[in-house]
Amino acid sequence: MTKSVVGKSVTRVDSFNKVTGNAYYTGDVKLHGMLHGKILMSPHPHARINNINISRAVKLPGVKAVITSIDTPQKKFGIFSSTRDQYPIAYDKVRFVGEPVAAVAAVDLETAEEALRLIDVDYEILPAVFDPKEALQEGAPQVHEEAGHNRCLDYTVTYGDLNDGFAKADLIREDTFKTEALAHCQLEPYVAVANFLPTGKLEVWVPSQSPFTKRAALARTMQMNLSDIRIHAIDIGGAFGGLSEMGSAEFCAAMLSKKAKRPVKVAFSREQTMIAYRQKHPMEITIKTGMTKDGLITAKDIQILADGGAYQSTAGIALTVPLIMFLGLYRIPNVSYKALRVYTNKGPRGAMRGHGNQQLRFADGAQMDLMARELGLDPLEVRLKNAVQTGDVLLNGAKVYSCGFTECLEKVAEKSGWKEKRESSPGTLKGIGIGTGIHICGFDLGIRSTSGAIIKFNEDGKVSLLTGNIDNGQGNKTMHTQIAAEILGLPLEDINIICGDTDLTPLDPGTYTMSSAYISGNAVLQASLDARNQLLTIAANELNVGTSELEIADGRVFIKENPERHMRMKEIIWAGYKAGKHVIGRGEWRPSNVTPVDWMNGKIDGQPTKAYSYGVVVAEVEVDPVTYKVKVTKTTAAHDCGYAINPKAIEGQFEGSVAFGIGQALSEGFVWENGRALNAGFLGYKLYLAEDMPPVESIIVESEDPFGPFGAKEAGVTVSIAAVEAAVNAVQDALQAKFDSIPITPEKIQQIITKG
Amino acid sequence: MTKSVVGKSVTRVDSFNKVTGNAYYTGDVKLHGMLHGKILMSPHPHARINNINISRAVKLPGVKAVITSIDTPQKKFGIFSSTRDQYPIAYDKVRFVGEPVAAVAAVDLETAEEALRLIDVDYEILPAVFDPKEALQEGAPQVHEEAGHNRCLDYTVTYGDLNDGFAKADLIREDTFKTEALAHCQLEPYVAVANFLPTGKLEVWVPSQSPFTKRAALARTMQMNLSDIRIHAIDIGGAFGGLSEMGSAEFCAAMLSKKAKRPVKVAFSREQTMIAYRQKHPMEITIKTGMTKDGLITAKDIQILADGGAYQSTAGIALTVPLIMFLGLYRIPNVSYKALRVYTNKGPRGAMRGHGNQQLRFADGAQMDLMARELGLDPLEVRLKNAVQTGDVLLNGAKVYSCGFTECLEKVAEKSGWKEKRESSPGTLKGIGIGTGIHICGFDLGIRSTSGAIIKFNEDGKVSLLTGNIDNGQGNKTMHTQIAAEILGLPLEDINIICGDTDLTPLDPGTYTMSSAYISGNAVLQASLDARNQLLTIAANELNVGTSELEIADGRVFIKENPERHMRMKEIIWAGYKAGKHVIGRGEWRPSNVTPVDWMNGKIDGQPTKAYSYGVVVAEVEVDPVTYKVKVTKTTAAHDCGYAINPKAIEGQFEGSVAFGIGQALSEGFVWENGRALNAGFLGYKLYLAEDMPPVESIIVESEDPFGPFGAKEAGVTVSIAAVEAAVNAVQDALQAKFDSIPITPEKIQQIITKG
Repeated sequence: MTKSVVGKSVTRVDSFNKVTGNAYYTGDVKLHGMLHGKILMSPHPHARINNINISRAVKLPGVKAVITSIDTPQKKFGIFSSTRDQYPIAYDKVRFVGEPVAAVAAVDLETAEEALRLIDVDYEILPAVFDPKEALQEGAPQVHEEAGHNRCLDYTVTYGDLNDGFAKADLIREDTFKTEALAHCQLEPYVAVANFLPTGKLEVWVPSQSPFTKRAALARTMQMNLSDIRIHAIDIGGAFGGLSEMGSAEFCAAMLSKKAKRPVKVAFSREQTMIAYRQKHPMEITIKTGMTKDGLITAKDIQILADGGAYQSTAGIALTVPLIMFLGLYRIPNVSYKALRVYTNKGPRGAMRGHGNQQLRFADGAQMDLMARELGLDPLEVRLKNAVQTGDVLLNGAKVYSCGFTECLEKVAEKSGWKEKRESSPGTLKGIGIGTGIHICGFDLGIRSTSGAIIKFNEDGKVSLLTGNIDNGQGNKTMHTQIAAEILGLPLEDINIICGDTDLTPLDPGTYTMSSAYISGNAVLQASLDARNQLLTIAANELNVGTSELEIADGRVFIKENPERHMRMKEIIWAGYKAGKHVIGRGEWRPSNVTPVDWMNGKIDGQPTKAYSYGVVVAEVEVDPVTYKVKVTKTTAAHDCGYAINPKAIEGQFEGSVAFGIGQALSEGFVWENGRALNAGFLGYKLYLAEDMPPVESIIVESEDPFGPFGAKEAGVTVSIAAVEAAVNAVQDALQAKFDSIPITPEKIQQIITKG
Repeated sequence: MTKSVVGKSVTRVDSFNKVTGNAYYTGDVKLHGMLHGKILMSPHPHARINNINISRAVKLPGVKAVITSIDTPQKKFGIFSSTRDQYPIAYDKVRFVGEPVAAVAAVDLETAEEALRLIDVDYEILPAVFDPKEALQEGAPQVHEEAGHNRCLDYTVTYGDLNDGFAKADLIREDTFKTEALAHCQLEPYVAVANFLPTGKLEVWVPSQSPFTKRAALARTMQMNLSDIRIHAIDIGGAFGGLSEMGSAEFCAAMLSKKAKRPVKVAFSREQTMIAYRQKHPMEITIKTGMTKDGLITAKDIQILADGGAYQSTAGIALTVPLIMFLGLYRIPNVSYKALRVYTNKGPRGAMRGHGNQQLRFADGAQMDLMARELGLDPLEVRLKNAVQTGDVLLNGAKVYSCGFTECLEKVAEKSGWKEKRESSPGTLKGIGIGTGIHICGFDLGIRSTSGAIIKFNEDGKVSLLTGNIDNGQGNKTMHTQIAAEILGLPLEDINIICGDTDLTPLDPGTYTMSSAYISGNAVLQASLDARNQLLTIAANELNVGTSELEIADGRVFIKENPERHMRMKEIIWAGYKAGKHVIGRGEWRPSNVTPVDWMNGKIDGQPTKAYSYGVVVAEVEVDPVTYKVKVTKTTAAHDCGYAINPKAIEGQFEGSVAFGIGQALSEGFVWENGRALNAGFLGYKLYLAEDMPPVESIIVESEDPFGPFGAKEAGVTVSIAAVEAAVNAVQDALQAKFDSIPITPEKIQQIITKG
């Protein structure tokens, strides 16, 4: 089928508003009589709350409501029903610096901030624990006393025979790697507006990756009916996994609004956004690998110790996803995987692009290069030799229906000039490294893994498309608009997409399982096909032909054999109305035969995701011999996204993902002192910036997944995963050294160079 | 079928917000940076605009935009494509006092008003014509010179043989009656907010009886794509026909917003609302009637002269509807109908409850009583004798599928104690009178006579109902919610209705063809049935039974034979999601075999409306011998609304309709001087108020229309029509006099009493 809209690079449907400042973010929401809310956060990493005296704050003129835990239903929240362990506002004790303790709503920000200072909290400071290994020791401070230990979650799984695997190896190597806690660094700080109406309905504006998930958690913690809460569609300034869970901003805004009987906006500062919500899991990863002398991997023994911070959050996902992804990338016959997540008195670690996938890939990939070096092998060849192929059935039983991994490796190698550069680089302070990535296209997370969509035709033959999905900036609106336009034979501008409003749009998983193209896109496709069939039926009746004789394109339906005989879309819609027929398409999609992952028990057998996407990055670096800074001079990236619905947008994803990955590899990470992040804020947190960016050569590989819409899969994340590994390996190559932790700061390079 | 939600008196779903001040009207819309717009209106009834100088207004600090006709696309608007004769802002000349000439947007109201005073319009005052008969004379001022005459529209139709009819009569009587121009007197003055976005999209908030119709007219006059305009759903403070056409408030708000690049609110004053938009047609009606001595009507010769004001507006409808309704009420074998609408230099007359139906019924009913008096007959008996019955085929070929008219007459007579009171009243200054009404349930007005609806189930088993219909205060939201709740076996509070938003909701005729229950209600019914079938299919699958074995009620689906085996709605929805199935119902409805009325040529043959509703009112009055004021002491009203979906709401309609009708009969009407309404405003316009109200005894008659949802038809209007006639006849009875014009003011009574 010739395609006229999908597969073409189009300007995003929302870019005009964004570049002209007309996008409508939560910060722009100004309701009549709206109050400003502020949250008092714990300054202590671990303390018992003996008393909170709000009387001085309440009396401050301009203060309209003050709440502490006792003003709330005191329901804990969490990702799964079994992991609800966090109060939206701390009740008995605080477990990390930044944990909400009280909140106020006042007529202006200054009054709200002054009121916070007038709240007297009687803290009994408790000994705190910050290091996961210390947390496991006898007598360590207990983050959750009732648990009797600080082991949040652990599990073990073995595939094949590890001894047999290592017996077949010519080289066995064991290394330990470490990663840091990271911040999402969305450009939009965390903010929420809530309006609790006298009818008992609650209206909420909040950036969210999944409005339906946020609504469910808010309904539970507010003890309200789900349908009494409406999460409004709103523009979003980035998410990266950081907007999937309910947070204290929307909860406090809602509770304050209920108490003050006025709308309330709660806006976090940049610092609060970075410390008081969720961070990426820091992990210590030990890998023992067996490899034959020609580079075949015979066994892997993996141990992960994750610092989970004070609460469960995405514990099960963070420990499970690395393994699910690991199994889908290389053919390794014998694998042992032991993962443990520990509580410490730091901010809870939750979802962030990759869910632990990046951490393991960095460690595994860095070690793979070290082994190749020992064996005198080309790291590219090692990767090619072990690469998973289309049709493979993985150790957990999952089938790989589409896989462009090998093609990605080959194309990146060719385009980057890998062979020549790799051979000439050692010892020159210039290095080249390769990294690989894999990611999912949707999980079975229960009922919210299914997407619905509605297509409503207007009287002028144009369309309103309603989907529960949302666009965090990655281009989902445009991608879905393209899918509908393609199927309906309409230009892009004839589709008006309305998304992510819980009252109006059908249920959708949102953007936190990489399912926006694969699942939501398919729902849009189905709704479009449904509407298309209705259009063809009306036109066939009007033109006195069978529907099979008709084609749809360019805003009209015409007879294939006689294209002059046609009806414009508006004519079809009007003919429909005259017969009392409204063209309203509906679609729904959920991947078939996907096995629910047992997150809390680590069971990933079967088909945990219907499709895998792949990415490969080659990074070239130069190490400055004076400042020890690493400059990435070039990156070449290939990405099997199945089918590129909007190539330009996917190239944008390449850019962002390369920045995201290199930042993790070379500069980003929190610096801690007694549970306090010393560098929260954009001044101290060395976010990889546009000015740091190397050129990115992007190669789109299209494996055409049999189930994705037009063959499309997840687009973007795999490149961010591969980029971490590629940058690390390039530095290892440049210095012929080993780096066992990221970020690779100038200090670490100085140690290598001055030592060596 | 036992019904659990429909047929029950329920509290309106929107009443809480309304009584607590939380309803959200257009006046409440406050957008960031919003400007205040004001319209300069002509002080002259007829003048050529030689020049408009806006330079002083533009320079006034705070003024952000000034527009005159030349700043607009200069496209005329009108109800039908052939009747577009009015510029939203006058171009070459002004034809009535209050016609828009220019508009300004400024930072506040005071500045906008000051700017209006700084606009210099060079008017060349033209001779004007105010009386329709004068307008028809040779040499009369020409309202539209290009027409060559002031005849706006006329037509003639004859059924049967008039001469033969009159030959069979024992009494022939000819009378001429007059009615006044009226104001709708919605409590909400006319207001609009527009936000023209830099993307080229236009967002509009405006009270409207049909958002889709307003959008179409706005798109045309703004020269924009239909889908680039969004009319938002908003609460409305009454309409009564006055919000069906596009008006200058939304047009000027939109044009000013486009020019100023900021949102603009244009709010009319009460006086402007009454004079500058639309009024009810004043008519002079001459009727010649033949009647046998036992009260059988043998022939009617009707001539109507309507004062249309300066523009076409609803000309065709105003001349056609009286006849359509006339034919459906009484069996009259020979009818001649001649109607003429004339241009004058007054505000355009357009739609207002009944469209000319009230005027003719008043005249015809008053004469009927005069003839009964002459023949010594009981007016009730005359009505019963000639009443149309279910199954009748009318002179125009229309079939009456349901008719509770006779039942209404009988019940009202019985409940009011008609016989005794009528016999004892003459000459006592106390009178009793009867009036009858009939109305349509939707017309074929082209594509906008079809309604669509969508039912979206939420994760908690509750529902979002999307309909393009709106609620002007009559209770449509509640009625549609009841229909959906009934079909889906849900309590009322589980349905969240979203209505009248052109981007979100399917096309709907709106509330200006009395089709909200009959057409829109059927669309909601169909969407609900569609969703219900989906629920039953899922439940049947889960319960391992056939769908026919299942029943739905009380928020669950159960096995009829074994009600203990059931699934709650939420369980069904979750089971659906697990199978990738979203319960999204869609429905659409358009009455079948309804013949389009040829409004401009008066062709009403066939079935102009699928159903007729009926109303009968008996009014009892006392005339004060000193002040000559009429006090209505009691009314008894019966109404065949087919089926009472919400009896309490319909009783509310009885109250409002009685007030509406009595007001027209006894007090309301403009007083004119040189084309200027002297009593525009609530102080001078004697609106019939709550304190004037008699007790209303309401009798609901249910004829169960075969096509209406649950048998329902239009509810309300017929009572307002019957009430005019009833009040007039009661006063005629009290004074044994003839009144040939309404309102029957104390001055007219004084003349009768002092003369008599």
